[in-house]
Amino acid sequence: MSPLTPLSQTLLSAKRRKGVSFAELETLLQRDEVWIASLLYGQATASPEEAEKLLAALDLDPELANELTAPPVKGCLDPEVPTDPLIYRFYEIMQVYGLPLKDVIQEKFGDGIMSAIDFTMEVDKVEDPAGNRVKVTMCGKFLPYKKW
Amino acid sequence: MSPLTPLSQTLLSAKRRKGVSFAELETLLQRDEVWIASLLYGQATASPEEAEKLLAALDLDPELANELTAPPVKGCLDPEVPTDPLIYRFYEIMQVYGLPLKDVIQEKFGDGIMSAIDFTMEVDKVEDPAGNRVKVTMCGKFLPYKKW
Amino acid sequence: MSPLTPLSQTLLSAKRRKGVSFAELETLLQRDEVWIASLLYGQATASPEEAEKLLAALDLDPELANELTAPPVKGCLDPEVPTDPLIYRFYEIMQVYGLPLKDVIQEKFGDGIMSAIDFTMEVDKVEDPAGNRVKVTMCGKFLPYKKW
Amino acid sequence: MSPLTPLSQTLLSAKRRKGVSFAELETLLQRDEVWIASLLYGQATASPEEAEKLLAALDLDPELANELTAPPVKGCLDPEVPTDPLIYRFYEIMQVYGLPLKDVIQEKFGDGIMSAIDFTMEVDKVEDPAGNRVKVTMCGKFLPYKKW
Amino acid sequence: MSPLTPLSQTLLSAKRRKGVSFAELETLLQRDEVWIASLLYGQATASPEEAEKLLAALDLDPELANELTAPPVKGCLDPEVPTDPLIYRFYEIMQVYGLPLKDVIQEKFGDGIMSAIDFTMEVDKVEDPAGNRVKVTMCGKFLPYKKW
Amino acid sequence: MSPLTPLSQTLLSAKRRKGVSFAELETLLQRDEVWIASLLYGQATASPEEAEKLLAALDLDPELANELTAPPVKGCLDPEVPTDPLIYRFYEIMQVYGLPLKDVIQEKFGDGIMSAIDFTMEVDKVEDPAGNRVKVTMCGKFLPYKKW
Amino acid sequence: MSPLTPLSQTLLSAKRRKGVSFAELETLLQRDEVWIASLLYGQATASPEEAEKLLAALDLDPELANELTAPPVKGCLDPEVPTDPLIYRFYEIMQVYGLPLKDVIQEKFGDGIMSAIDFTMEVDKVEDPAGNRVKVTMCGKFLPYKKW
Amino acid sequence: MSPLTPLSQTLLSAKRRKGVSFAELETLLQRDEVWIASLLYGQATASPEEAEKLLAALDLDPELANELTAPPVKGCLDPEVPTDPLIYRFYEIMQVYGLPLKDVIQEKFGDGIMSAIDFTMEVDKVEDPAGNRVKVTMCGKFLPYKKW
Amino acid sequence: MSPLTPLSQTLLSAKRRKGVSFAELETLLQRDEVWIASLLYGQATASPEEAEKLLAALDLDPELANELTAPPVKGCLDPEVPTDPLIYRFYEIMQVYGLPLKDVIQEKFGDGIMSAIDFTMEVDKVEDPAGNRVKVTMCGKFLPYKKW
Amino acid sequence: MSPLTPLSQTLLSAKRRKGVSFAELETLLQRDEVWIASLLYGQATASPEEAEKLLAALDLDPELANELTAPPVKGCLDPEVPTDPLIYRFYEIMQVYGLPLKDVIQEKFGDGIMSAIDFTMEVDKVEDPAGNRVKVTMCGKFLPYKKW
Repeated sequence: MSPLTPLSQTLLSAKRRKGVSFAELETLLQRDEVWIASLLYGQATASPEEAEKLLAALDLDPELANELTAPPVKGCLDPEVPTDPLIYRFYEIMQVYGLPLKDVIQEKFGDGIMSAIDFTMEVDKVEDPAGNRVKVTMCGKFLPYKKW
Repeated sequence: MSPLTPLSQTLLSAKRRKGVSFAELETLLQRDEVWIASLLYGQATASPEEAEKLLAALDLDPELANELTAPPVKGCLDPEVPTDPLIYRFYEIMQVYGLPLKDVIQEKFGDGIMSAIDFTMEVDKVEDPAGNRVKVTMCGKFLPYKKW
Repeated sequence: MSPLTPLSQTLLSAKRRKGVSFAELETLLQRDEVWIASLLYGQATASPEEAEKLLAALDLDPELANELTAPPVKGCLDPEVPTDPLIYRFYEIMQVYGLPLKDVIQEKFGDGIMSAIDFTMEVDKVEDPAGNRVKVTMCGKFLPYKKW
Repeated sequence: MSPLTPLSQTLLSAKRRKGVSFAELETLLQRDEVWIASLLYGQATASPEEAEKLLAALDLDPELANELTAPPVKGCLDPEVPTDPLIYRFYEIMQVYGLPLKDVIQEKFGDGIMSAIDFTMEVDKVEDPAGNRVKVTMCGKFLPYKKW
Repeated sequence: MSPLTPLSQTLLSAKRRKGVSFAELETLLQRDEVWIASLLYGQATASPEEAEKLLAALDLDPELANELTAPPVKGCLDPEVPTDPLIYRFYEIMQVYGLPLKDVIQEKFGDGIMSAIDFTMEVDKVEDPAGNRVKVTMCGKFLPYKKW
Repeated sequence: MSPLTPLSQTLLSAKRRKGVSFAELETLLQRDEVWIASLLYGQATASPEEAEKLLAALDLDPELANELTAPPVKGCLDPEVPTDPLIYRFYEIMQVYGLPLKDVIQEKFGDGIMSAIDFTMEVDKVEDPAGNRVKVTMCGKFLPYKKW
Repeated sequence: MSPLTPLSQTLLSAKRRKGVSFAELETLLQRDEVWIASLLYGQATASPEEAEKLLAALDLDPELANELTAPPVKGCLDPEVPTDPLIYRFYEIMQVYGLPLKDVIQEKFGDGIMSAIDFTMEVDKVEDPAGNRVKVTMCGKFLPYKKW
Repeated sequence: MSPLTPLSQTLLSAKRRKGVSFAELETLLQRDEVWIASLLYGQATASPEEAEKLLAALDLDPELANELTAPPVKGCLDPEVPTDPLIYRFYEIMQVYGLPLKDVIQEKFGDGIMSAIDFTMEVDKVEDPAGNRVKVTMCGKFLPYKKW
Repeated sequence: MSPLTPLSQTLLSAKRRKGVSFAELETLLQRDEVWIASLLYGQATASPEEAEKLLAALDLDPELANELTAPPVKGCLDPEVPTDPLIYRFYEIMQVYGLPLKDVIQEKFGDGIMSAIDFTMEVDKVEDPAGNRVKVTMCGKFLPYKKW
Repeated sequence: MSPLTPLSQTLLSAKRRKGVSFAELETLLQRDEVWIASLLYGQATASPEEAEKLLAALDLDPELANELTAPPVKGCLDPEVPTDPLIYRFYEIMQVYGLPLKDVIQEKFGDGIMSAIDFTMEVDKVEDPAGNRVKVTMCGKFLPYKKW
């Protein structure tokens, strides 16, 4: 992991100190918890209202709203192949299922991609007696390749 | 992309020659189309019955069932950072949302990972007047870290 | 450069043999010459009509239309840092002007990216007594980051 | 992103503090905003007059003119493949369109390159009801390979 | 080795200062010494009781229990190929015996993997007049690939 | 995986054709099945008697004994970080548990390493109602660092 | 070294077969021997007359003039750090003297670069009783950074 | 660029503060300006007299002579492929002209290398109405491969 | 070079301050000077007596004996290919002579390796009128591959 | 290992077929066996007499003398960090002892390097009841850095 910015460190340790969960911030900000987590990690841009509410909830200096509302330089993993086991599994999924996935998407949609910008991602817990399951749902706009 | 095995080339070009879609193979084999695509790309192992049905559907030599039913060496992308734009977007999603996702999963489940082995992945088309959307649903068993 | 596919080799050597320029193919196909070159290099997908016209113009087997109309695995440079001097200069431009460019775009548009999919690129020659100039114009849809 | 030099940090935070946009600095310095941004990021060299005006506009110590007028060690991206999504798209454009672009330029100009030194780059917003577009225009002198 | 977190540095130097061995901590915490070492290196998560006992044994601030009980970002080796000779040997074992091991495991178990999460590892000393031997026993749940 | 040598391909496909398991070859050669698998993958050297017996069991040309008894260039994985999920888990184990393991071994043995040459590795199946487990036992001579 | 193109292999083995030195080709073509060598290695473009003369001198098919007169994809070293000792020394020179050289050039010329395109390179032998010396003279146009 | 040592930073900022050019130091020390620049960048070793003169000229503590006269760990570029455009051009020259240069040198001298140790490098400005040119002259002892 | 540990920096600057050579420490400690240098660079472990003597000779705090007698994490070069010219030559020797050396060792000893742990290395100066020579003698136990 | 050239393959398999050892070729050619092995691996250049004798001893076509007497492109290891265990140990020796070795050599000789060109390397077997030892003696001319 590349070092977090001072802003992210401030936000994450305030959250720990206040004992607030992302689920509680979801209720407060009316944004999905994954998006809120990405805001704390310096990967998204808040509106002034969102910044104000978040900083108040974490008892932080309202001045930080300035930085929270400016588009960040994104990307929070340092090595090209991530080493944290939880994150690596998603990399492995693309190693194993990337080309099959590409073929199925393109058979359904034609030549193009799923947007990672006009995009949402949600996490749910699926209760299962044989062991609970993590469900990750990604949903992005299909962008067809333009010809010119 | 690292070069496909001869078996994958044979299967994929037979599929093209026969004009069969993955969706049609889904009906035939009673397996999800993403899993079937991963079988054709040499990333999964068929049962003898699945192999037999698939080879018959593609008019291929039943002898190939031998190779189709043996666990393959997996991984079908060559460079560490994939260059195909469709596949790269999933890599970018982890660059941008990897650490936030990790935090949300662990807040919900504790220390552990989502399995990429006891795992399923599906692709759906979400009709949308502003542009259709690709929905990818991943679902894997949560594995808590064992202590000993 | 990673090795070209057999299809690209066939198309490019037919073009050389016929002595046709990309500018002439532009007139024939009513597509920009950069897009046509990207089609020959296996980076774009033709419509059936485009495939038919191109193959006829190059005196090639109409059967090749099958492959020309299927979405390719994209990416035609092998090493991460390109070694061909003409192509390297564009990589260098991003090394030197990447962050400034990012700031100017985001000051004008907010948090988001220029699409490389809903995208066009054109090349013009600017006559100049002190030495002609290459003008490359890229134009892509601005995609704002979605919140959810 | 490799860490910014102290000079760049000083300039960029002064700009943020003063609330000045690159477009306003463009009017002040009579230089394009992309070039000005590259000066703030430590990728270009100011004349003494440009340095003086810029430092005055940002309320900074005129002594900094010394460093602003010395040629910097250039290159502001750390990893070989950039991870910020906005910047990555330009890298992807070369992965997908690099060889086609090379062929079209060389068909028009012969063997040589577009200079990245005798070079300008501009950004414009193209209003479009289907979504505004980013237009990036690069213009560099064509340098033919010398024989000897 | 990537730099240790401040927490790990505190724990490891307290252990050195107190002159406690991992074997003694094993008795105290009723956990295997390898697992305890991985906890000190920031690779595992303690329960509140384990954290309390460990911090007491090392004469450290009980407040640190907060961090000790949160799932860490894992992975403690920086370069892809480890340079410490003791650790490199395990990398080399996979270079030399990785594919054979894979074949033997899959002949015994079918297509799947040994979990590195539901996993234990122990170290024993095997006395031998020709030179003592290190015995490392790894034991992980077999996870068969799911079909869907 | 880097391409197998022709010798390995011959041996492995003969084994498949004959339907012999590594466990059966273990009985025949009186060597552990992991070592036998490493011999087939070109990572170990046979004695003339071992070569003769193996080639007879696989119905192969006895002339191949020449190559089977010469020390091979070792290492059968191509990329630095292995992509096959089964093999990757062992790499991950070192990422997560490498430094803890080093500390425990050195607390027990002093400064030195576990040999990967004077070394054995065995695989066992541990039956478990909650899911069978893979047990991998590595045993190597401890080599203390020499001073001089 | 990345594999030579078939054209380069043909040219270089014809040169060997004919026993012609680069110095002799220099006389024939009225071009420097380094440039001629770079033409044979597929790094430069011949005029039709140069191609004709060279092919005649090497007893090769005049049809090859087609390829010899088209701008090649350049770059003939494969790994990023060259392994051949003669070539590595030039890489090392930049490691050791690169920044000093940059400072001296920019003190003499201002902010800009030495062109590698409008560029010549010559090799001379300097007789010296203490051991002959290799003299390499590079001469490239200075290109000042443009402002805009 | 990897970070400069404190010694280099002290020397370079003293030079800037005093407004001395490398050409002036050349006159003072009777050494070529490129060598002097390499001394300031921590890539060469001074004699005690050279150290004394240089430190006096820069108004620096004579105690620094200790470090200036000890052989440094050399190499001042961090990434394998340099990103500064001026330095990259020399890397590119080897990519394009490396193998041709090797052939010409070896045709003139036999099997061996040009030394980068018993080596000098000079920079001259060649006035030219079409644009001044940078002339870099490298001269190193030829070292033939020894047989034994 | 990766940054030295604080301990190494303390030891090396004390040695410089005291003006002691490795040869003198060799007499004091009755250990070879290469081994002593590796101890100062944090690559070896001292006995309590060795630590005491060394710290006394360098006028350093006897408390440092604690760290000097604990097995270090080894490996002192940062980039995979070393850039210091003296060290690079040893890397080059393996590039050029590695496989030949392997063959000769294995023809003499069978399948196995030379230990880098049960290993010594010495440096001698060989006086020679044509230029003195460096003689490096490495001597390691031969370890034959075990079969099991 | 990067693939051997056809010439090397021919030489090495002829040696195997004839059952000649490097030690026997040493007697025949009056060159050290390591040098002869490096000649067979395409890393050295033979004189015409050496080529003739070697080819006769191996019953090979005398025409091959042409290639054997031309300076090769050197470097026979493909990945930057070698994977063969025997060769890796020499890489590890530099990781662990590289900086200490540099200091000792420079304390004895001043600023400079040991040549890898004017260089010899020999292998001896040292009989030892505790296990035989491999002795590798490298001897290269010391080259002091030139000043200019």
